[in-house]
Amino acid sequence: MTLATPPRAVVREVGLRDGLQAIARTLPTAHKRQWLRGAHAAGLREIEVGSFVPAKYLPQLADTAELVAFAKTLPGLFVSVLVPNLRGGEAAMASGADLMVLPLSASHAHSLANLRKTPDEVVAEAARIRAARDAAGAHTLLEGGVGTAFGCTIQGEVSPAEVLRLLQALLDAGCDRVSLADTVGYADPAAVSRLFEAARRIAGDRLWCGHFHDTRGLGLANVVAALQTGVTRFDACLGGIGGCPHAPGASGNVSTEDLAFMLQSMGIDTGLDLPALLALRRDLAGWLDGEALYGTLWRAGLPKTLQGRAAATV
Amino acid sequence: MTLATPPRAVVREVGLRDGLQAIARTLPTAHKRQWLRGAHAAGLREIEVGSFVPAKYLPQLADTAELVAFAKTLPGLFVSVLVPNLRGGEAAMASGADLMVLPLSASHAHSLANLRKTPDEVVAEAARIRAARDAAGAHTLLEGGVGTAFGCTIQGEVSPAEVLRLLQALLDAGCDRVSLADTVGYADPAAVSRLFEAARRIAGDRLWCGHFHDTRGLGLANVVAALQTGVTRFDACLGGIGGCPHAPGASGNVSTEDLAFMLQSMGIDTGLDLPALLALRRDLAGWLDGEALYGTLWRAGLPKTLQGRAAATV
Repeated sequence: MTLATPPRAVVREVGLRDGLQAIARTLPTAHKRQWLRGAHAAGLREIEVGSFVPAKYLPQLADTAELVAFAKTLPGLFVSVLVPNLRGGEAAMASGADLMVLPLSASHAHSLANLRKTPDEVVAEAARIRAARDAAGAHTLLEGGVGTAFGCTIQGEVSPAEVLRLLQALLDAGCDRVSLADTVGYADPAAVSRLFEAARRIAGDRLWCGHFHDTRGLGLANVVAALQTGVTRFDACLGGIGGCPHAPGASGNVSTEDLAFMLQSMGIDTGLDLPALLALRRDLAGWLDGEALYGTLWRAGLPKTLQGRAAATV
Repeated sequence: MTLATPPRAVVREVGLRDGLQAIARTLPTAHKRQWLRGAHAAGLREIEVGSFVPAKYLPQLADTAELVAFAKTLPGLFVSVLVPNLRGGEAAMASGADLMVLPLSASHAHSLANLRKTPDEVVAEAARIRAARDAAGAHTLLEGGVGTAFGCTIQGEVSPAEVLRLLQALLDAGCDRVSLADTVGYADPAAVSRLFEAARRIAGDRLWCGHFHDTRGLGLANVVAALQTGVTRFDACLGGIGGCPHAPGASGNVSTEDLAFMLQSMGIDTGLDLPALLALRRDLAGWLDGEALYGTLWRAGLPKTLQGRAAATV
């Protein structure tokens, strides 16, 4: 059968959150602003700028409120943040973010290690955030992000039935959108195909995003599999940075520039300027000098066949 | 739609040919024998051991006849070699190889640079090799491998119609099998899907193999796309070595261990022992100390969810 290729897809940059939280050093706010400006100029229109967690846990992201305010000055940018609980949700709503992502780990063991709550306690938190939003009349959308959806470095197998139960529970608790994340790089294209198909039957278009790590090299293959189920929005980190501090060896989100290159090569419009993304990656490599960056496109550059097309979209 | 996953697939190791020809140093024959033994022990049953080109062009592969003889002592191993012309084909048949691959470059410019022949002159060479085989009553199968099938670093675009015309011409000239190669890492999953679908309509089950480079990170995504069209055999190089000396920046075949990991994760039987492949990669890294190896799985290792399954197949 021939692959389905939707006319367009959205790359959501999450490097400022998922990438930087995995790197010990704190990137200065001025560099984060440059990153945001550069990402916006390269055509990115959805960016996760940080996380409303207590600064003692993630000092690297302590400037999230300031970054939301700055990001909202960039025309047409849809700004999201991560929130671990009601308190974070209240901060997100106060900041003026367009979307808040509440992470839930389908692995009970990973959930306790990472969030200090059971998955069902996170569902209850989603309900509290939704109630607070309704009471405040705020407009920040709520996305429930189901992580370790394909397995977990701590407990191993995670049952697809449990993932789907939690997805349904998040929707019932009032999430506007849900997403599935392969937090630790355990997914494969066949598992992605099965789980996203099933999730779509539950959530329809409220199944919002696929989040893949490239820990074992399957990140882009997993994107292709998810695309076949109708998902058209994917998280990615510039330079493939990122990981999960509670999942050893789980470094490396799908890289923004490789993902954008693949989608555009497939004739799927992303609105992104590939040379600008590669230039921004070079800036990031300078700001994070000494840290490991990943991805592949930067090494060989754009193919001759795409250089004209890429330039034409600039 | 849900991804198709065939019950089994074949990984053809081509590192001893496509990998080593791109590396200036000559790996000693003793190490090549160790590689062959280790690959066979890890479950590989199709291996391209070298190339019958004049030693002055590729001194790294001058021991090909000796390696064919050794490889044929390994039980059940299907041994292939590359041949550039009739003289190479005669050497291949004399060596006792099971299969000879005649490369044809669909890019006229690349063909002249790499093979010093036009594509149609290579088709004529296929006919001569087939006639020589018939006259000799030899049993070495002939595969026509159409390279630069998705574009070329020299001429840029390569027309799919031209690729399909040459595929048909190779079959008409007497090739038993044909394959498609993304020699320079220009393919994307949508292009792979379209071209392999069309090629399968022409060649049926004689469309034998997909050969992808990971130059821009899309190697495994392209394998997933080709799998959907019914192809179940893929070339790969241990440690992701390889490339094309006449295609600058085109380093890196799909890595054997990453490909095997993806297929087995998808529930597709390859008969391969993943821990043994990772151990062999470590040996290769030692033999090629200082050369660039690629691939991703080796960094993080096997996921907990697969460790039991992988061990069970040993």
